[in-house]
Amino acid sequence: MRVLAIDPGYGRCGVAVVEKSNGEELLIHSACIETSAQSEFPERLGKVVGECARLIDEHAPDSMALEKLYLTNNQKTAMRVAEVRGALIALATRSGIRVFEYTPGQVKSAAAGWGGADKTHVMKMLHVLLKIEKDIKHDDEYDAIAIGVTHLAHTR
Amino acid sequence: MRVLAIDPGYGRCGVAVVEKSNGEELLIHSACIETSAQSEFPERLGKVVGECARLIDEHAPDSMALEKLYLTNNQKTAMRVAEVRGALIALATRSGIRVFEYTPGQVKSAAAGWGGADKTHVMKMLHVLLKIEKDIKHDDEYDAIAIGVTHLAHTR
Repeated sequence: MRVLAIDPGYGRCGVAVVEKSNGEELLIHSACIETSAQSEFPERLGKVVGECARLIDEHAPDSMALEKLYLTNNQKTAMRVAEVRGALIALATRSGIRVFEYTPGQVKSAAAGWGGADKTHVMKMLHVLLKIEKDIKHDDEYDAIAIGVTHLAHTR
Repeated sequence: MRVLAIDPGYGRCGVAVVEKSNGEELLIHSACIETSAQSEFPERLGKVVGECARLIDEHAPDSMALEKLYLTNNQKTAMRVAEVRGALIALATRSGIRVFEYTPGQVKSAAAGWGGADKTHVMKMLHVLLKIEKDIKHDDEYDAIAIGVTHLAHTR
C-alpha cells in the first residue's frame, strides 16, 4: 500500500510518498514543490501538476490522498487552492489512481492522536513514527507526510 | 483565432469551439457534457476533462476561455466548480494553450451589449451573431458560446 499524499498549494505544495510494508510506515519520498510568484497562475499550476505526474511515474502509488478543502477568510486564495486540488484529482483519475480526502481534524487525529494537536506536536510524532532523519524545511512537506500517515491509518 | 470556451461544471459543463475568420465569428462546435449524479466526483471530473482533452485534439484551439469564479451561497458547490476549473486550466497549460478568464459581467457585455442583459437577450444575440441554426437545449451550452464570443471580442 503506497500513497502519494499532497498538501495542495500553488506557491508551495507539499508532497510525500508513504508506504505501509510489514506493518511499518515508511517515508519513501517527500518534498516541497515551489513556484515563482512572478509566474502567472496557469504556469504555477502546470508546474505543480507536472511534478506530481512525475512522482506518480516514479513511485507508482496506488492512491492519492489530499487534505479536504476548508474555508478561510481569503476567498480568492481558497478558490485557487481548490483549482490546484481539482487539477490533482483529475491527474489521479486519469492515471487510474483512487483519490481520498481527509479533513485537517482527521489528519491531526491520525498523526498525533487527537484532533486538537498543535503543529509542533504533529511534527514530533511524525519524526518518531516514520523515523525521519532528513531535514524538513517547510510546514507543507510535514503536512503532506501527515496526510499520507492519515491515509494509511484509515485504510488499515 | 480559435478558442475552446468552457462554462465549467461537473454535472453539466458547456463547451464551445468558436472561431474568428475574415472578420466573422463562426461556431465550429458546441455541446453540453453531462455526468451522472450517481458517479463520484473524481469520475465526473475525469469525464469532463477527458471530453475537453478530446476537443483540443480534434479542434486544435489556440486558447481556452473560462468564466471567472464567482461566489455563490453554496460554498461546497463553488469549491467543486473551482476544482473543475483548475483541472481545465492544467489541461490547457499542459497542452500548450493559453488560458483566459472572463467575469459574468464581461460575458454579458460582449455577447449582448451590456453587463445587465438577461439570459434570453444574450441567447437571441448569440443566435443572430453566430447564425446558430441547431437546437440548443441547455443554458450551459449557451454560456460557453457566450464566453467564446467574449474572448473573440477581447482579442480583437
